Amino acid sequence: MTASPEKNEVVAFQGNRGAYSEAAATRYYGHPVRLLPCHSFDDVFEKVTHGEVTSGIVPIENSLTGSIHEIYDLLLKRNLVICGEIKLRIVHCLITVHKTTLSSIRRIYAHPQAIFQCRKFIDNLKDVEVETVYDTAAAARIVMEHGLKNEAAIASAQAAADYRLTILKRGIESNHLNYTRFIIIAKKLFKRTGRNKTSVVYEAKNIPGALFRSLSVFALRDINLHKIESRPIPGQPWKYLFYLDFEGDIRDKKTMRAIEHLSEISVSLKLLGSYRPGDEVTGKILRRQNE
Amino acid sequence: MTASPEKNEVVAFQGNRGAYSEAAATRYYGHPVRLLPCHSFDDVFEKVTHGEVTSGIVPIENSLTGSIHEIYDLLLKRNLVICGEIKLRIVHCLITVHKTTLSSIRRIYAHPQAIFQCRKFIDNLKDVEVETVYDTAAAARIVMEHGLKNEAAIASAQAAADYRLTILKRGIESNHLNYTRFIIIAKKLFKRTGRNKTSVVYEAKNIPGALFRSLSVFALRDINLHKIESRPIPGQPWKYLFYLDFEGDIRDKKTMRAIEHLSEISVSLKLLGSYRPGDEVTGKILRRQNE
Repeated sequence: MTASPEKNEVVAFQGNRGAYSEAAATRYYGHPVRLLPCHSFDDVFEKVTHGEVTSGIVPIENSLTGSIHEIYDLLLKRNLVICGEIKLRIVHCLITVHKTTLSSIRRIYAHPQAIFQCRKFIDNLKDVEVETVYDTAAAARIVMEHGLKNEAAIASAQAAADYRLTILKRGIESNHLNYTRFIIIAKKLFKRTGRNKTSVVYEAKNIPGALFRSLSVFALRDINLHKIESRPIPGQPWKYLFYLDFEGDIRDKKTMRAIEHLSEISVSLKLLGSYRPGDEVTGKILRRQNE
Repeated sequence: MTASPEKNEVVAFQGNRGAYSEAAATRYYGHPVRLLPCHSFDDVFEKVTHGEVTSGIVPIENSLTGSIHEIYDLLLKRNLVICGEIKLRIVHCLITVHKTTLSSIRRIYAHPQAIFQCRKFIDNLKDVEVETVYDTAAAARIVMEHGLKNEAAIASAQAAADYRLTILKRGIESNHLNYTRFIIIAKKLFKRTGRNKTSVVYEAKNIPGALFRSLSVFALRDINLHKIESRPIPGQPWKYLFYLDFEGDIRDKKTMRAIEHLSEISVSLKLLGSYRPGDEVTGKILRRQNE
C-alpha cells in the first residue's frame, strides 16, 4: 500500500512463512520484499536495533482482543520508531491434507489466539483434541509433515498455499470483524507521504483532572485523537500509562508544540513515531518463487 | 472482602472448581458462598438474567493482556449491572502427580491464556508438548485422572489442592505483575458501602474534540477518572466506543447529572453500574467440605 523509501529492504517478523505478519508486510509494501522470520517479538526489535534488517513488522492491536501490551513495553524499552501501519482482516481457515472431511478430524493444531477466536467452531466438533503451537504457519507445517487425514491446522489461506494443503473451511472465526493492526518499526521515520498520525505513551500527573488537561493540549489546537487507552500499572494504585494516537506529524511545528506542551504536564512521555494511518485490507495469496 | 447484601447467594462463574474466577469469588465475598460452574461467559450472563443464580463473576481486564471485549459486549447486550469488583493476582503453578521431576515432563495441559503468560518458562523446557484445554482447573483434572509422571498442568494452587496434586513450581508466569480484574454482575446494584465508582460505555459524536468535551463533563465537576479506553469499531472508520470508569455512584445527584450531561453529547450511552473499587488480593486455598 505504502512504498517504503528504501530499496533492498529486509523486514523482520515474528513467526514462520505464512504467518499473518507476513501477509501484512506483503500488503503494506505492495511489492515483493525480503522477509526474515524471527522467534519472538523481542528478536524482531533486536534485529532492527542492530541493523540486521531495515525494518520490522509486529501486531499492536486486535479489534477483538485489544492492545498488545507486550509491544508497547518493547517500544518503551527500545529506541525504535513506528513508521507505518496496516490493518489486516484476519481470516482463519481449517486446513488439511487433500481428500479429508470435517467429521474425520480428531486433532487440530493452532496458535492460542486462533483457538480463542475460533472457539465456537471448535466447540461444535466432536472428539477433537486441540494442540497449541506458537504460530499459525507452524500448525500447517505439522499437518503437512504428518500427512494424516484426521489432523487439521487453523491457519491463513497463505499457509495452505505454502504447504500445498487444502482449505476445508474458510472464515471459521466466531466474529468476522476481526482486524489486527500491524506497525512497521525502524530506526528512523519514513519520508512523509500525506497526512500522518503520531503515537505517544505518557504518564499523567497524579492530580485531579490530569487526563482532561493533557487532552486539552490537543483539543485547544483542533487536533483529532485516533486512540486513547489507560493502562493501570499493577502494584502502583492510581498510576496509569496512557497510549495516545493523534493526527499530525512530529516534523510539523504544531504537532511538536503539542507534544512539548503534553510533556510539560506529564510525569514522563515517550514519542513512538509518526506515520501514515493504515488502510483496512485482506491478505492476498503470494505465489512464492525460488523457495 | 465486601459482603453482599443477600444471604443464600449462589454465584455463577465460567470454568470448573479451582478456576481463578472461583478464587476471586471466594476472596470477594470473604465468606463461603455457593458457586455454580458454567461452560461459557454467555452462560454466566444467562443464568443471572433468568434468576437461576443471584450473581455472577467474570474477568473484565488483565494487567498484561488488557480489556476483555467479549465481556463488554455481553454487558452491552444484556440488562445486567456491575455491582462489585476484585483484582486477583494470578499465580500460575506447574502441578503434577507426586514424586515427579521437571525433567521428566513431556506434556503440559493448560488454558491458552496461561500458555501465553508462562511462555518463557515453557520455552526453557525440552521435548514438551503443550495441549490446550479451556480452563485451568480442567487441566489439573486431566493430570489427576491420567496419573502419569510425565504430565503436568498449569493451574492455580487451589486446583492442586482440589485434585490432590503437587505444586512442582509456583509463579511460573513471565511477568509477576499479573492481575485480573473480576466484576460481579447482578440484576440490581448492591447496597452502597463507602466510595463507589461507576462504569459506562458510550459512543462519542464524530466531531473534532468530541472526546475532550465528554471528559469535560467530569473535569468540570472534579470527578476523577479510573479508566478510559477507546475501542475502534471495525468496518466503521472513525467510530469508537469508549469504556469509562469514574468515581461516584449513580445514586448520587452529582454523578447522575454528569451521566445525563455525557448522554446529551453522545450518540449512545449505556450505564454499566456503580460499585466499590476492588482491592488487589491473592487467592487463598479453600479447604472444601462435602465435595
